[in-house]
Amino acid sequence: MVEIAIMGHGTVGSGVVEVLTRHETTITKRAKEEIRIKYILDLREFPDSPLADRFTKSFDDIIGDSSIQIVVEVMGGLHPAYDYVKCCLEAGKSVVTSNKELVAAKGAELLRIARDQNVNFLFEASVGGGIPIIRPMSQCLAANDVVEVAGILNGTTNFILTKMINEQMPFEDALALAQKLGYAERNPAADIEGQDACRKICILASLAYGKHVYPDQIHTEGITNISLADVQYADAWGGVVKLIGEANLLPSGKLHSIVCPMFIPRDSQLANVDDVFNGIMVRGDATGDVVFYGKGAGKLPTASAVVADVIDCVKHLKARKYLFWEDGSSDYVADYLDNEVAMYVRVQAADPDAVCRQAEQLFGSVTRLTRKGIGADETAFVTPVLKERDIREKLSHLEENGTKVLNTIRVSDF
Amino acid sequence: MVEIAIMGHGTVGSGVVEVLTRHETTITKRAKEEIRIKYILDLREFPDSPLADRFTKSFDDIIGDSSIQIVVEVMGGLHPAYDYVKCCLEAGKSVVTSNKELVAAKGAELLRIARDQNVNFLFEASVGGGIPIIRPMSQCLAANDVVEVAGILNGTTNFILTKMINEQMPFEDALALAQKLGYAERNPAADIEGQDACRKICILASLAYGKHVYPDQIHTEGITNISLADVQYADAWGGVVKLIGEANLLPSGKLHSIVCPMFIPRDSQLANVDDVFNGIMVRGDATGDVVFYGKGAGKLPTASAVVADVIDCVKHLKARKYLFWEDGSSDYVADYLDNEVAMYVRVQAADPDAVCRQAEQLFGSVTRLTRKGIGADETAFVTPVLKERDIREKLSHLEENGTKVLNTIRVSDF
Repeated sequence: MVEIAIMGHGTVGSGVVEVLTRHETTITKRAKEEIRIKYILDLREFPDSPLADRFTKSFDDIIGDSSIQIVVEVMGGLHPAYDYVKCCLEAGKSVVTSNKELVAAKGAELLRIARDQNVNFLFEASVGGGIPIIRPMSQCLAANDVVEVAGILNGTTNFILTKMINEQMPFEDALALAQKLGYAERNPAADIEGQDACRKICILASLAYGKHVYPDQIHTEGITNISLADVQYADAWGGVVKLIGEANLLPSGKLHSIVCPMFIPRDSQLANVDDVFNGIMVRGDATGDVVFYGKGAGKLPTASAVVADVIDCVKHLKARKYLFWEDGSSDYVADYLDNEVAMYVRVQAADPDAVCRQAEQLFGSVTRLTRKGIGADETAFVTPVLKERDIREKLSHLEENGTKVLNTIRVSDF
Repeated sequence: MVEIAIMGHGTVGSGVVEVLTRHETTITKRAKEEIRIKYILDLREFPDSPLADRFTKSFDDIIGDSSIQIVVEVMGGLHPAYDYVKCCLEAGKSVVTSNKELVAAKGAELLRIARDQNVNFLFEASVGGGIPIIRPMSQCLAANDVVEVAGILNGTTNFILTKMINEQMPFEDALALAQKLGYAERNPAADIEGQDACRKICILASLAYGKHVYPDQIHTEGITNISLADVQYADAWGGVVKLIGEANLLPSGKLHSIVCPMFIPRDSQLANVDDVFNGIMVRGDATGDVVFYGKGAGKLPTASAVVADVIDCVKHLKARKYLFWEDGSSDYVADYLDNEVAMYVRVQAADPDAVCRQAEQLFGSVTRLTRKGIGADETAFVTPVLKERDIREKLSHLEENGTKVLNTIRVSDF
């Protein structure tokens, strides 16, 4: 029998208890050991839980109990999660977490402690909820170089964009609906401003290229500026707007990584990832494009990923899993302005035709877009692929001539 | 250093050598051991290979060499692959294979020998080429019951159907093009008649439900009867025709499994899997639908999956991976005629309106379809969901009344 502790009894935590209980027999068979929940750490009271006698408010109970070999951290947030997890690993306990903020901020450090202590630090549930991605990516990696990893990593924003695209619902209404349905928090900033997706691409890029990328190193834009006009222009262009996190290693050895809304062509596998679903593309030099698709969040999907990690820990109590990346460095991530990209530009101007002629001159050529119900003073176009810095400079020339740039959205190449 | 033997130097076999050579440094790092190819078994001569000195025509060299701990089988076909693999496992050597015919026919037996000998028998490359599916599915399984597994498992037929759907190319022309491009064999029977997909769904169903399903237990239909008319009616219905392999466990404990062309709604994740790509959906009770997408075949994708298994073997030379299913039984698979399904029916009749009225009476109601260029003596409709046996019986009533049933295609529920 293996005794475990679960830190946190919120949505995911209670889901972990539910999955462990519901599938007890098959889990025991697969883990080849009975898994017993000895402690559940939470400051709240749960007198009606069938496991009411396992609850504790004191972390000391867990850290001081040498019979606990595996600790599940599903509290979320950086503190005290980081302090507790570090403490557990240093005490020789394996840790399983669903906490993307923790892994994105402290992954390299915690993986190193786990290695030094010969225990496991697993976090399959931190990206893609119930979609297996961390393990398959390690597997792809074994015999591939990862050329690129890119994906729709946040279900809340994808739900909002899907409503905007399919039902022409304005952003504010779609956000309100997402909140009503429980897909978005009352304070939705982490989702709609892109931080959640940023944490996830940090984890994927760290894993793919073996070196930690920190969230503050990645240029991150959310979807709050996306209007129905942009969605309609994307449709006219032949695609959809999706919030994308992407990373690829440059020939220089630096990393290009960005989180931002992008135009995705309609025939891309990521274009059809709708509603709260996530889709993650891993481009390997041998496998080509492999895409993983499923629900990126939710109580039971996330909990089942946590439990799969727990089972893996039980099976590897003595043989550590290979999962490691080294510390990051401040010069690792390239300036996103140096990246080459095509750009959709929506402008307001008294004479749209004149603006397009100017744009043609500035950019060599542009692809002009139109939409139903277009205003007399608006137009939109897509630039050729150029260094983003040059595109911004050329657009500032347009602005100097009285044109108002209302929005710019990068065009994906996948 | 771990010494391995590779049996077969065809497309996949030479790809395995290429991947092992190209990624030698990273593979050594990941496997924590150098992997050295000691023998390559092939009856042909490869005097120009840089590994020319490793070739042998005699299996005895491999089986008699106790330094060989891992054998890669990439010969294909059932014999002598089965005999060699069995021999290797019995001699305490781990085996990695890409041979779906072997795993579908003999998986349970070979897994049992591997378990008894405490060695590994791995076959990630046997399904989905370079798409990680066997391992992620084991992972999903750890904390989920698999409700259903279904997928587009054969790239050749998917290429042909895509050409028929997107370019209105007749079946024969699309097949000829697939052969010209090297996607189809000169004898394409195993692909277009569904056997290849059948072997793959056997492997996935055996893994998902822990009991072997043999290819001859699964009702298998290919795509040779699919006409452009069917493709056009599918479009009118709101979807596409795809060759699907599916399996789900019935409440009776029996397995429903079938390989056949199906109508797939346009908004299904599987509808957008085009060309030679594969897509596999695993529906878990906790995770919901998870879809894996990528190139299902090809030299390097398949080879990289084989090499990932080899690395896993090296890392688990002493700790066996958990991968097992029990023997099948002759009464395990339910009669497909007892399955409940909606059916597309295309008929030829002097009076199509009269046929539809008869069909309405027989089936309660039907959804009539039309297409551009419809003949005066043809019509098509979709039946309600009924036991397939009852549908067939009602259709025979139609035929007794002089209507010719030209084709029937099942309608998917995913």
